[in-house]
Parts: sequence; C-alpha cells; structure tokens
Amino acid sequence: MTTIGLDTLNTAMPESFVEAIGDIFENAPWIAARASAGRPFASVTALHAAMMEAARMAPLETQLTFLRGHPELAGAMARVGAMTADSIAEQGSLGLDRLSGAEFERFETLNTAWRARFGFPFIICVRRHTRDSILARFAHRLENDVESEISAALDEIGFISRLRLAAKVSGPGMPVTTGRLSTHVLDTVHGRPAAGVALSLHEIGASETARIVSTVTNQDGRTDAPLIAGVPLRIGTYELRFHVGEYFAANGLDTAVPPFLDLVPIRFSIAEPEGHYHVPLLVSPWTYTTYRGS
Amino acid sequence: MTTIGLDTLNTAMPESFVEAIGDIFENAPWIAARASAGRPFASVTALHAAMMEAARMAPLETQLTFLRGHPELAGAMARVGAMTADSIAEQGSLGLDRLSGAEFERFETLNTAWRARFGFPFIICVRRHTRDSILARFAHRLENDVESEISAALDEIGFISRLRLAAKVSGPGMPVTTGRLSTHVLDTVHGRPAAGVALSLHEIGASETARIVSTVTNQDGRTDAPLIAGVPLRIGTYELRFHVGEYFAANGLDTAVPPFLDLVPIRFSIAEPEGHYHVPLLVSPWTYTTYRGS
Amino acid sequence: MTTIGLDTLNTAMPESFVEAIGDIFENAPWIAARASAGRPFASVTALHAAMMEAARMAPLETQLTFLRGHPELAGAMARVGAMTADSIAEQGSLGLDRLSGAEFERFETLNTAWRARFGFPFIICVRRHTRDSILARFAHRLENDVESEISAALDEIGFISRLRLAAKVSGPGMPVTTGRLSTHVLDTVHGRPAAGVALSLHEIGASETARIVSTVTNQDGRTDAPLIAGVPLRIGTYELRFHVGEYFAANGLDTAVPPFLDLVPIRFSIAEPEGHYHVPLLVSPWTYTTYRGS
Amino acid sequence: MTTIGLDTLNTAMPESFVEAIGDIFENAPWIAARASAGRPFASVTALHAAMMEAARMAPLETQLTFLRGHPELAGAMARVGAMTADSIAEQGSLGLDRLSGAEFERFETLNTAWRARFGFPFIICVRRHTRDSILARFAHRLENDVESEISAALDEIGFISRLRLAAKVSGPGMPVTTGRLSTHVLDTVHGRPAAGVALSLHEIGASETARIVSTVTNQDGRTDAPLIAGVPLRIGTYELRFHVGEYFAANGLDTAVPPFLDLVPIRFSIAEPEGHYHVPLLVSPWTYTTYRGS
Repeated sequence: MTTIGLDTLNTAMPESFVEAIGDIFENAPWIAARASAGRPFASVTALHAAMMEAARMAPLETQLTFLRGHPELAGAMARVGAMTADSIAEQGSLGLDRLSGAEFERFETLNTAWRARFGFPFIICVRRHTRDSILARFAHRLENDVESEISAALDEIGFISRLRLAAKVSGPGMPVTTGRLSTHVLDTVHGRPAAGVALSLHEIGASETARIVSTVTNQDGRTDAPLIAGVPLRIGTYELRFHVGEYFAANGLDTAVPPFLDLVPIRFSIAEPEGHYHVPLLVSPWTYTTYRGS
Repeated sequence: MTTIGLDTLNTAMPESFVEAIGDIFENAPWIAARASAGRPFASVTALHAAMMEAARMAPLETQLTFLRGHPELAGAMARVGAMTADSIAEQGSLGLDRLSGAEFERFETLNTAWRARFGFPFIICVRRHTRDSILARFAHRLENDVESEISAALDEIGFISRLRLAAKVSGPGMPVTTGRLSTHVLDTVHGRPAAGVALSLHEIGASETARIVSTVTNQDGRTDAPLIAGVPLRIGTYELRFHVGEYFAANGLDTAVPPFLDLVPIRFSIAEPEGHYHVPLLVSPWTYTTYRGS
Repeated sequence: MTTIGLDTLNTAMPESFVEAIGDIFENAPWIAARASAGRPFASVTALHAAMMEAARMAPLETQLTFLRGHPELAGAMARVGAMTADSIAEQGSLGLDRLSGAEFERFETLNTAWRARFGFPFIICVRRHTRDSILARFAHRLENDVESEISAALDEIGFISRLRLAAKVSGPGMPVTTGRLSTHVLDTVHGRPAAGVALSLHEIGASETARIVSTVTNQDGRTDAPLIAGVPLRIGTYELRFHVGEYFAANGLDTAVPPFLDLVPIRFSIAEPEGHYHVPLLVSPWTYTTYRGS
Repeated sequence: MTTIGLDTLNTAMPESFVEAIGDIFENAPWIAARASAGRPFASVTALHAAMMEAARMAPLETQLTFLRGHPELAGAMARVGAMTADSIAEQGSLGLDRLSGAEFERFETLNTAWRARFGFPFIICVRRHTRDSILARFAHRLENDVESEISAALDEIGFISRLRLAAKVSGPGMPVTTGRLSTHVLDTVHGRPAAGVALSLHEIGASETARIVSTVTNQDGRTDAPLIAGVPLRIGTYELRFHVGEYFAANGLDTAVPPFLDLVPIRFSIAEPEGHYHVPLLVSPWTYTTYRGS
C-alpha cells in the first residue's frame, strides 16, 4: 500500500487532510478535521495523539454517536456488508466472518446483552486479540458502568486507529504497533546452540488448536525469522513444541527408548501485543528450563 | 488374594508345588515341575530364576510349543474366550478387549504378519506397556529373526511370570515388579514448597489422551500419594499438567493478564517400568525447570 | 550427658526441681522456682514455656537484675573466669575466647557503647550465630530503645534456655532446637544422581573462610550424613564447593580444556537456625541450577 | 598505531614488503621474504596463511634456528633487554617481567628442564593465556617428543603472528583474533531484565585473584560494554560476582535476613580465546541458573 508522507499531510489543505486520513476513525471524519488545526505535527505519534484528544474531548452525545457508528463483532452488519473495508479486513483476519454455529451464538448472546446495557457496540482492537481473549474481554467489560465503558471503548479505538494510521502515513516518530515473538534453543550437554531442532508454534484456543508456523533452528539455535513479527501479537495462549528427541538422537545421544524428553511443549500466554516475548529453551535429554527472556 | 508362603512351597510334595504355581507360565505346568527339583529356594527371586532357567534350557521344539500356547494380543482367542484368567485380566487392563475398529485392524494386520513369520503369537508383558508402546514393539520385533525373537519372547515371559509369581507367592527376596512416579512443586519466588497446586497426570496416546489422576500438592509441595506406585509403570508417554496460574494468583502474585504461565504441561516418557521417576517443577510466574530427579 | 526425665521433674520436691534445672537460666534459679508451681507439665516444650512466662511476667527491676547477671560477649568476665560453665562452653564454641586483636577491639567498642546505653550486657544465643551475624545483630540492636531491647534479650534467653533444657531434660514434646543442611547432586547429562562428586562446605566470614566439612556424594547423589544436623544452624554465610570437573571427566565427558565448569561454588546464607536447608545442584558440564529445596 | 593497507603490501617492492612486515615473525624476515612470492593476497588471512606455510615448509635446521631465536618466558633475555619490542609488550601484559620469587623460580625450573630437552625456548602466545594456563601448558608440553613440540611451537607462532599481523595490516579478510565475554541478568520473579545489578569479573589464579572489571547492569539486564572484547580471551579461570541481594532489596523483595542469596559467584573457565562466552544469570531470591549461552 502506498503511504502518505507526514510532510504532505502537514502542508495539505484541510479538506485534503481530511480526505486522506478521515477514515482512520470509523465513520468519523470530524476527528481528522478537528485535529487538522493542530498541524504541523512533529511525528506520526503526535498526529495520532491529537486525533485521540479530539475524540476524548468531544461532547458525550458526539462520542456516543461515534461509538454507535462502529460495527458489531461477528454481527449483522458484517453479514449485510455494511462495514468499512478496514473493519472487514480486521474481523476477517480472526475468522469472525466464518464462526461455527456455537461460537456465533456465543457472540450473538454477548452482543444482545451488550446492546441492551450500553446502546452502542462492543468495540475492541481485533488485531491485538485471539477469539478467546475477545470473548474474555467481552464478558469482562460487560460488567463496566457506561462511563468506564466509554473510556474503555475509546482506548480500543486508540489501538485500532494507531494501527490504521501506521499503515497509511509514514514519517518520523511512528507509533509502536507491532510485537515480536522469538525463541532460542541451547543444548546444555554440549554447551552450544542446538541447530536443526524442528519446532512449531500453535495458538491454543478454548475449542481448537491452530498451528501458526513450523520451522527449524539454525546454527545459532534461533529461527531465521522471528516466530511472529511486524504485527501486534494477539493476546492469547500459545504453545511452542520442540522436537528435542529427534535432535538428541541425531547428535549421537542414545538415551532411553522411548526418550524421556521427545516433544517438549512450552505453553505460555501473551498479554502485551506490542511487547517482545523471547521464550528460550535450555535442554538436555533429562531436563529443561524455559523463561521469558529479553 | 491369599498368597502362598515360600516356605510352604519349599516343603510341599512336588505335585502340590506344581498345582500351586504351575499356571504361572501359560499352559506350561512342566516348567514348575522341572524347577521343583531345585528346591528349597532361598528367595522368591531365586524360585523365579529357576523357572526361567527351565524354560530357557528346554529343547527348541518344547519352547515353540510353549510359545504357541500363548494367546494373541487383542486376537481371536480373546473373542472366543479361550485365554487363561490371568491373560484375560492383563489384556483387559489395557482395554485390548475393547479396541476401536481401526486399532483392532492394526492389531489384526500385525498378528497376521507375525503368524506368517514366526508361527507363534507375539508375546509381551502387557502390564508394562501402553497400547502405543505395544504397537511400537510389535512392529519393531517383527524385524527380528526367529532365534532373536524366541529370546525376546522368553524375556517378556520372564516379566509376565515375575508379576504373576509376586502376586501369588510371599516370602523373602521378592522380585521388584513395581515402579513409582512422583512429583514435587517448588515456588521459586518464595523459596518454599508450593502447596495447593492442582495437577493432573495424563497418558498421551497416539490417538487419544486419558487422564490417570488429578490431585493437589500438600504443604510439602508433594502429592499425598505417589502419582503411580505399586504396579509397573507402563512404558509410554505422559503429561503432567500443573495449574500454576491459579496458584500464583492465590498467593498474591499479580502478574500479567492472562498470566505468562497458567497451565504448565510437562511431557515425558517412561522407559523403565520398575524405575523411580521423580519429575519435579521449579516454578516462578515467568520461568520453570523440570528434570528427571531421584 | 545423663538427662533427667520430665516425669522425675514433675514429681520432684520443689527444691529438687530447682536444684535440677535452676541453672537453665543464668544465675536465676527463681525462674525455675516460679515455674515449679505449674507442674505437672505435659511436655518439655510446656515446661520451657512456663519458665519463659515467669521471666517475662517478672517486674522490670527483677528482669533488669536478671539481664545484668549475664556475661558480656568476649568480655572481661570471660577473662577473669566469672562465667557459668554453660556460658563458657557456648562462647568457646564460637572462638569468642580467642579473638584476634582487631576482633576483640570491635567487641570491646560495642560492649562499651552497649553498657552505656542499656546498663546490662548484650545477650544473644551464641550457638545460633556465626561471629559475623553476632556483630551484625550487636550493631543493629544497639539502635533499640530499652523496652524493645529487654524484649529482644528475653527472646534470646528463650533460645539459650531452650537449648540448655533440651540437653538436660528428656521427655515427650521436646522443643525443636536443631536445623539441617543437606545437598543433592543430579547429573543432567545422564539423568541420574551424580555419585562420587567431591564437595566441601565452608563458612564465609568477613575476615576468613573456614572449612566445615569435606565429603563425597553417594550412589543417590546425596551425602551419607547431612552436612549439618543435630545442632542449630549458625546464622551466617556459607559456600558449598562442588568438584564437578573431576566428576564429568571421570564419567567420560571430555569437554573443554580447561573445563567450562570445574569447581562450582554455591554461596548462600542461613537465616533460620532451626530450619531445613536443602541446597541441591542440577549440573551438566555447561550449566547448573541451584535452589532452596525442601 | 597506523596500519598498512593490504593493497600497498600487494604492490610493494619485495624489499619494502619485507621491511614492512618482516618482524611479524621473531628475528625471521626470511619468512616474509618467501611469502612475498605468493602475492597478491586476496585477504589478510591468506597472507598470514602463506607466511605460516613458509615457516612450516622450511628445512628442520632452519626451523630450529628460527625457534631458537625466540625469547624465553620470564627468562634471562627479558632481564638483559634482548627481546623484540613485541615480545616485551606481550610478556609484560601478563606481568611476566615482574614475577614473585616463587613464580620466577617455577619458570626457571621449567625453562631449565625445557632447554635440556628441546634446545629451544618454550614458545606460547602469551596474549591468549593467563599465568596459570601458561604454567599448565609448559608442564604438559614438556612431555612432548621433539617433533610434536616443533609442531606445537609453530602453532603458537601462528597465534602470535596472527595477532601481530592484525595489528599492523588492514584489508579484507582480517583473521579472527579476538574473543568476547558477556553476561545478562534476568529477574525471574518479575519476568524482566534485572537492571542495576552490581557485578564484577575476576581472574582466579592459583595464588591470587585479580579484579578485571566492575560494572552495573543496564535496563536490558546487560552491561553497556562486553566484559571483555577486542582482545583474545586469556585461557584461564574466572569468576563473575553478582550482587543480587542488594538488587532484590532495592526492588521491594523482602526475603530472609540475611538473604538466602546475596553475592552470587559464577566460576567458569575459558578455553577458546577467540570464542564468544555468554554467561547469563537467571535469578530469583531463592534460585539461580547459569549456562554457557551464545
């Protein structure tokens, strides 16, 4: 996607500014319009902060109208094609447009309860979540009072718009919108990186497990590319599976039959989508250690 | 079950001796008969060794007849009710009498290939195995030549008869026929045993996972009873699952939401049915270590 | 030393009771006399509690006289031979009767400041301490106000008298007066206890290091006897030194020359004299883990 | 020091070439002279290889004369000022010019035995060693036969000349002549790098311990500069000392008094002067793990 330079935006006519980035906020070009008065912005982060300030400072009625302009998650708007292109892409990335019957029903129940309580849709930055974490937050935030929920919804809109803005505008001071998940395998029998260890990363959902990537460690015991990078890490539970039995057999360590350790599963959760999660494995045929590293 | 004292056996008339323990070896009272000449035995282990010696020293034709007198695993004999009571119990303990269609077929294929190659059934000490390890050994031993396989079959008969003998006879020098699986959880934030950690042990089969036991750690971070004891440990793959997220939350450690570590799975295999496997967990909210201890 | 049975004490004439255990409290047979009224005692612990109650309930002037009846640490009373036999043995066990010039001066300075502030000697249960921890507490408690210090001194007298009582009286409900220090070495290359590892335990003092014991691990990776047992563990800093380089070389692991790990020092402090400190080592030629176990 | 470009050397007149780098090999400009015929060299490594080839291909008598032209370690040549400037600097870096009486005597004894056996001095690349490892190799190589020792001496000359060449010549394909020692501290209670941990690195000699560097971990739990870099790591034994007690106290973890872990010593040996040694610490107040990382 071609991006627009911050310089260009800083010097554009107001109406061009709004035309360029008015859709960062769902059906709310007025936010860009108000922010345009604060130009020039020294950084993309400052531009985003100014837009969020406009949203947060707006009168309650304006805010409620704004919130009501958002689509429901996995909701009727999706089915009748009334969502913005960005929303379609975001919800689709999580498969919210092709839920199973039971899941769809779970969302419907929550959406119904939510509408009754708040009068605007449940808003969450889908790209920072797995289905399980969305459902968990959905149920949890249903306990909010209206004031807290408006604040929570604006926080999520902050995450959503930050991602959209980072994709559309380039310039100095880009906001941090991506996380990183990496691993490293050390062979503690030989005191060196374990090269050639097959491993895979899985998302552990409440109802199913999905493989995200399969790879093999290189000479440095790392993977050639991070396991996840360049996108937010979805809040949720994961499992790394290391095939250490094959590795030790291939490296001349005859141990027991079957080996005490063969497939080593490391289950962990990600809570910070923009964080760096380094999850190494120190392993011999009879012991291992894992930790959140840096 | 009432047991017979070794003293009684040592002084019994030969025919009473054979009547008492002739069925230790499947359809082969002659083994007890030959061993009776070696009385008195100083230990139950010595009695067992004498019977195995008789089986191993018998002429080839006698050995083959002996081996042919064993039931097939999950085979036709089971279905027509022609097995000895011991064999029925042993095979039943593993569910070999109620296999799914696909599993039954896998056994049938192996049994057919086996009969064609060896002319006697595949013999294995079922109580030392899981279904998966039986299938693995079945396929592996199908590569044996006849001489090696007769030796392998007699080794397995040694395991089977040792267990039967230990259940029937009491006295000094009992053979070791049981293993032990235990765990221990240490909380490395507080430097003390982790009390109240819910955990479960599962057998990880190729096609399904079965829970063996659920329990909670006591004040010493151990379980009140060993996870498995008093029987042979079945060769196979297991998983311990420790609910450390709940434990740390209950002990006042607010970490991430969701916590980095919640359910910690430790997957390991048992290769020595009469061994002691101690599989501890040293754990903080951000790291853990496990190892085969002692 | 012959001990007196609690039964005997429970039924003795009051004067015999006082004669038997009146010296448990330094120059204060009145404490035993008062406690004798509470007989019979169901346990030695209850007898001790009754005596401490008498000391704690006494009028302030009586308490001060009692405290003044204690010897100074490493003080003039020691040099002129005016201490009770118990005090001589206790101070001697720590070498307080043969300090170097600088240490003696340090004690003198503290004793002088102490006398000026409190008017009674610094009292501490020497057998629960190293010289370093005594000096640390000495300086720390010098900050106390008089009331707190009387309470602290009585606490220490509780420790002292508990030890004396446990040595003199036998019966049900003995107080816990001893700690335990143990270790365990696991070889994580082979997944088994490391047998034959030479190791030593040292007390790490501010001015010198003293070896307490040298030993070798047995087949279970433990030492035949605990490193310390049957006495209070002295509060202080220790170092375990494991000769793992020799062990791995003897077990056929050729690693680097010189080996990455040869002598592994584990430095730790003991804070609970009556606690159980288990300090294991999980070790390969390239990594190790230690922890306070249980 | 100004360096000469490889290009310049490749195109220089032969006599200029020898003048420029003839002193890389001790008193043996003929080695550069022979190597000059192989020009142009594509890399500094190739230039070095050509010079070593010339030395290794020379007739035995020439080699012996060459070896005899080297100074003894800590020997008489040093005292009478007959060494080359490079040798003076190299030996001085290890303090071999200011040994204690006992150490000097130890070197003298070895030098005398060596001269009697080989007729040429003991040659070793001093900059890759500590005094202890020099003495160990000295005694060990004294067992060599003459042929093996000539080969061993040439290997060491290879290390010496590689370092001298790398300091004098610049260009593509520089030989690897330096190692790297680094550390990293992870706080496993909080799951983050431990910032602000004071630590020091010490060389552990047989007769004394010398502090090499003291520093403090930064926000990433690392040290701003590697502990050692830019030079060969001296083969020998080292100790890292981490002040974790202060760190945990400063981070709000009240543990025992004194804390179970206060100063954590990690003792390890370096065997590969050009290697990367990463020696991290994963630590809570009650446990730690260290390993050779990468």
